[in-house]
Parts: sequence; C-alpha cells; structure tokens
Amino acid sequence: MYKFLGELINVDQAVRKGVDKIEFKLETLEVSVWDARGYILAEDIYASINQPPFHRSAVDGFAVKAEDTFGASPLNPITLRIKGSLKPGDKPGIKIDHGEAVEVSTGAPLPQGADSVIMVEDVDIVNNYIRVHKPVPKWANVSRLGEDYSRGDLLVSKNTVLKPHDLAIIASSGYKYVKVYRRLSVGILCSGDEVVEPGQPLSGGEVYNSTGVLIKNYLDEMPFIKTYYYGIVGDQKSLLRDFIEKLIGKHDLLITSGGAGVSGVDVLRDVVEELGEYVFRGVAMRPGRPTSLALINNKPVFMLSGYPVAAWTGLEALVKPIIYGSLGIEVPAKPIVKALLTRRTPNVIGYRSYIRVGIKRVDDKYYAEPYMLRGSGVLSSLVKTNGYIIIPEDLEGYEKDSIVDVYLYS
Amino acid sequence: MYKFLGELINVDQAVRKGVDKIEFKLETLEVSVWDARGYILAEDIYASINQPPFHRSAVDGFAVKAEDTFGASPLNPITLRIKGSLKPGDKPGIKIDHGEAVEVSTGAPLPQGADSVIMVEDVDIVNNYIRVHKPVPKWANVSRLGEDYSRGDLLVSKNTVLKPHDLAIIASSGYKYVKVYRRLSVGILCSGDEVVEPGQPLSGGEVYNSTGVLIKNYLDEMPFIKTYYYGIVGDQKSLLRDFIEKLIGKHDLLITSGGAGVSGVDVLRDVVEELGEYVFRGVAMRPGRPTSLALINNKPVFMLSGYPVAAWTGLEALVKPIIYGSLGIEVPAKPIVKALLTRRTPNVIGYRSYIRVGIKRVDDKYYAEPYMLRGSGVLSSLVKTNGYIIIPEDLEGYEKDSIVDVYLYS
Repeated sequence: MYKFLGELINVDQAVRKGVDKIEFKLETLEVSVWDARGYILAEDIYASINQPPFHRSAVDGFAVKAEDTFGASPLNPITLRIKGSLKPGDKPGIKIDHGEAVEVSTGAPLPQGADSVIMVEDVDIVNNYIRVHKPVPKWANVSRLGEDYSRGDLLVSKNTVLKPHDLAIIASSGYKYVKVYRRLSVGILCSGDEVVEPGQPLSGGEVYNSTGVLIKNYLDEMPFIKTYYYGIVGDQKSLLRDFIEKLIGKHDLLITSGGAGVSGVDVLRDVVEELGEYVFRGVAMRPGRPTSLALINNKPVFMLSGYPVAAWTGLEALVKPIIYGSLGIEVPAKPIVKALLTRRTPNVIGYRSYIRVGIKRVDDKYYAEPYMLRGSGVLSSLVKTNGYIIIPEDLEGYEKDSIVDVYLYS
Repeated sequence: MYKFLGELINVDQAVRKGVDKIEFKLETLEVSVWDARGYILAEDIYASINQPPFHRSAVDGFAVKAEDTFGASPLNPITLRIKGSLKPGDKPGIKIDHGEAVEVSTGAPLPQGADSVIMVEDVDIVNNYIRVHKPVPKWANVSRLGEDYSRGDLLVSKNTVLKPHDLAIIASSGYKYVKVYRRLSVGILCSGDEVVEPGQPLSGGEVYNSTGVLIKNYLDEMPFIKTYYYGIVGDQKSLLRDFIEKLIGKHDLLITSGGAGVSGVDVLRDVVEELGEYVFRGVAMRPGRPTSLALINNKPVFMLSGYPVAAWTGLEALVKPIIYGSLGIEVPAKPIVKALLTRRTPNVIGYRSYIRVGIKRVDDKYYAEPYMLRGSGVLSSLVKTNGYIIIPEDLEGYEKDSIVDVYLYS
C-alpha cells in the first residue's frame, strides 16, 4: 500500500510551488463591453477622450459668468438676460458675454464663456431675464471637462477580472471591444469503482458522484473558466493513460477526483506518475491531505480526493489560489466574521485544519459552532454551516471562547 | 420643470414597498445538477437514500468486531484470521464472526458483523492473520450508515440560489435533475439625446453610454437573471410608448436609465405615468435621488439615473434588494471591513448617502479615504475605490476617525 514519503509540504509552500511551475498560455480575443464581464483583460486600457468631454451642467438652471453674480443679494439682485437654452446632446454653440445667461438642463454642455450654473430654484424668471439673489462661485454646479479622467490616463490595467465598473469606464471612453484572454479550459474526470453518476441506480457498496458535481460547479463560479466534464473513468490503466494523454492535449488544466489517496486500489496516481512529474504529492492539511499536483507535458493536473469535503478543501486551499496566482490575478476578498468559538477545537500539529462552522448571533455577539461530524464525506457539514475557520499548523487547536475569523462561503 | 412632490420616501420604505407590490410569476424547468448553479430551486429536496448508504471504512485497514480487540496490548496481542478483502464498490457480501477480520480499503463497505476498522498501521500481518496490539472502540474509523443524512431528511429548501455545495448534496442522493425557476427576464433600455453607444463617433455635447453597460453587467452578475439590451430610445413620446408596451409584454421587469430626473426635457417619465402607476418616485438618497419604480400591467419598471454612479447606487440600494426580496431569496452577505475615516464626511440630513472610499492598511489598521469627487457621473470614483460607506438619514455626517463599516465591491 502507498504511503506518503517523508514530510508533507505545507499549504503555503504548495501554493507557491504551484504558481511557480504553472504557466498558462492563453490566446486573446475581442469581446464587447456588453458581454465581457468576468473575462481577464489582456491589455491596459487608456482613456481616448477627456471625461466629461466638455464642461457639463450638473443641475437644471442657468449658465453664467460667475463674476457677474458677485455682490448679488436679496436686496441687490442682479439681472441677466436669457440668451438661449441648451439641453443634453446640444453642441455648445452659443457664447455668452457679461450680463447674459443661458438656460441649461442637467447634462447639457455649458455655453462658451460660462463658468458656473445657478440652480433654477435660486432665480426669479421675469420675461426674458433672470434675477439672481446670491453669488455663485466659479465652477459651481459644473462637471468640468476631464474631471473624471483625462485623455491618456490609465483606466483599467491588464490582468483585471472585468467587473461592471471596469466595463462602464471603458465604455465611457468609447471602446466597444476589449482584448481579453480566452477562458481557461478545464477538463474534469472522476475515478473510483464505487462511484455512480446521479440518475443511475445504486447497488450495494456504491455511492453517487457528488464530488464531480461539486468540482464542476465550484469551478463554474470562476467566470474566466470553462469546464468540460468527462465522467467516471475505469480502473484499466492503459485506457486511462490514453485518455489522460488525449485530454492534456485538449485543455489547459485537468482536475481529477479519487485515486489520489493512500489506497492500493487506485491507478490514476500511477498513470500520472508515468506520464509526468509531481509538483507536490499530498499536503499537510485536513481534510484534503491527498491533494496533489503534477505536470504532464507542462500542463497541470490537480488530483483531488474522491470525498466531497476533502475535494472542496483542496479546491479552496490549493486549486483556486494556484489558478489565480498563475494567471496573475488576485483572489477576491472573502467575507469574514469575527466570532467566539463555542467549543475547544483541536488540531493535529503540523497540519492546517479547515473546520466548518455554523454562525449564531446572540445579543450582538457572533458565535462559531464547529460542525461535529468531520468526516471528509459528510456533505451536510458544508450545507448546514456558514463558513470555515482555519487552524494553523503550529497550533494544537483553539480553546473555547477564542476569537476566530470565520470565512463565509460566498 | 418637474419637481418632486412632497417628502421623498426613504430607502428602507422604498425597498419594502417594492417587495410588497411586485410578484414575479416564473415557470419552472428541470436542469441537470451539473449545470444548475445560480438557479433558484423551485422545490424542497428530500434525501432519497441514507448517506452513506452503508457502513463505510474511512481508512485502509481491517474490519473487525470491536469487542474482539478489547484487552489487546503490546504484551498480549490478539490474533484475528483474515477472512477476505473488500474494496470500494464491492457489495458487502462477506460476513465475519468472532476471531475474524476483513481487509478493507478506504471507501469500502464494512462486511456484515463488523463494527469498527483497525488502521493498517496498527497491526502486524502474519500470513493469513493480523496481530492487534491495542483495542479499537466500536465504530472507530467507520462512516456509519446515515451519518451524513437519513432518507427523508430535507437536504435543500425551495428558494435557495443553488451553490456548488447544494448541488453536491442533491447529487449525493442520486438526483440528476432539479426543478428550478426559469431565469428572470430583464429588458434594459436607455434614454437621452446626448447619449451615444460606445464604438460610435462622438460629437460635441454627447457622452458615451457607460450607464447602460454598467446596468447590464451589474445584472448579469446575478446568475438567475437573463438580460436583454434594447439600445438608446429616442425622445418621441408615441414611439417610446409603443416600445415600452411591447417590452412589458415580453419581460418580467424593465430597467431604464436617464429620463427619470428633474429635467423638463425627459419624456420617459411621462410615458410611464400614462401607462402605469408609480410605486415610488424619487428616493431620499445620494446619489441616485431620481430612482423610481412604477408598475405597468403589474410588471415593475425601474427608472435609474442616466449618470453611471447614481444608476449604480440605485441598483445596489434598491433594485437588487427589491428583486431578491420579491423572489423570496436572501441578498448574499457582502464583505465588510471596519476602518477609520480619514476625513470628516458630511451628509444632508434626511438623505442616506453612499460614499465611495479607498481602503488603506497602515500598521494593522484600516483607513477609509472618501473619494473627493462625488459627482454622480464620476466613474473613476467607482473604479479607484474599494467599497462604500453608508451615512444614515439622521446623521449630519461622520467625523474624522469615526469607525465605519466599508462594504467592499465584490
């Protein structure tokens, strides 16, 4: 039977090694700003115009020369002649001189010569004149040309996972298309003689392939990934070998479940050993200790546990940070809640433990209740909890009433 | 020119009124557990089997009767005969009697009569016998039948937005398909004579339609929504009226940008007034005060500002919570950072303000720096910041060094 050789690598080292060894080569494509959310930007985007492209009124009112209003008061109102009006979309063709005003609505360009806008509420309109009762400072109620950004400013940097804000600012500068990396193509295959696909009948000794469903849907949450599921592969070594070689040619990355454990009945591990080289083989974490990474033809193959909770820990602690790191993008922040631990929670020194917890709020305090059943197959421990705590390698555990960071599932 | 009549409704009242008035009628469909992520579950899912479906070995070792090992010690080892072996997927056909053991690998079913597993590391194997040096308690190293869940248990409730965990536990009970609500169909149209689509040339007085791009991509982040973008509509009242009537028939919800402000040049507001009735018309918040909601033929029409930041505030503070509330699902938790405000930040009493802030970490403390340019068109205020703070209606602002909750963009 297989045993792990020597010391297991720790989680941080495993992530670092993975990021160091993996280099994805992704072609680029042009995608419309209407549909590019979640893609990784493959270029720096610089402003092609000033924004706003002209001095723009921020309110409904009258565009004036500010100095014309200096000294205005309720007792000494100043009168200005209405020379015309501008609405949004009009060209700023009109020009005003001293003593003149132009009616503008919100979003309209300022007429030439104007440098401020008096709100409509603050004037009296008498025939073709306005009466101004208080001075306006220069640039009052005006969005000035270039105040958002200037032509040539960097708007969004390369390697940004495009969010709505980013696409809006890119669009504001007139770009319809952006150059992005094509999505990472990930093949998923499962192994295990005891594993049966959902929807099929179950015989004694068999279990349903919840792990495969978990892996595919977990990866689908990363919008820059496209997953391909290949089903449950058999235990025939030569067939499995051919299949993996074929898939490696088709995808950027493979993820397998099962067959990476310590059991003597698994062949997947042997096949990967023949075809490639391991980056790490087992990691000092619980659950998910068997999680391994190999390179075959320079392409990464992650081997996850066949047990769903252990596979999930492998995804969360290793696969996700390594994929993000290799792509040069940041793992998004997770919501964290500080909570009081309701029970002593032990750890095996040398391992990093991921403990699922339920959160309860009592009198403005949050309590984290560790889920009792820790088995790496216990899916209810994921569904019935709100998040997880991490116990580091150098601690024997957390005492009851410790304040812990709970990472919420998002 | 249009003025808001009387008191503006506050954000909480607006959300409550919206949720009360809106009732979406969504048909259901069957979707595979492999692809159902992000759909809203339309049924309660109960376990169809026990999980695990049999007593299962959690380790590689030997299945025994625990009581046979009681009294075992290094000086008095107990010897058991190896009767056979079971691997994952085997039917638990073998039966053991006192004095017998069955070799099992991780995931294998326990043979009949066995109630615990001794780890392979803890025995000596001598020919066809194992020598046991210490007792094992009953159910040691066994995942017991039904320990995850029992047949008939509620696994995932109706109205859950399906996450990977949920789909995994549903799959573990053998279901390939789940009944979900079809996605909410949302039509988006923009208005404004000054607005030009990205990719088109820009004349004086015109701006690009960044608001439309923001709205579409923001909604696309909710996986249970399908968006349809209809472009920039003109100012011809009769044409706009026909168009809106047509779209209301095709979609569950319409969202418009522009034309809901206080400007006299807008016609969208008038068209909506003729066709339907307002639920609220303007909200006491900044930015985004013009945000309105109407019902036309019992279908909601949200009117957002034409300015991108004001539109975003309308989406975040009103559209999102109202959609979630009307669908009976919870708005997911946002990551929050507690930070020290670097500057006094004023508020207009009676309004709820949404202030974009950048976050900096200095010596383990977080600081929130309010973005200076507050204009509702300043997109860089969204792109260059990390999140926002909310100043409630009854405060004149936050003093410098106040501890504030920063809601991170996710």
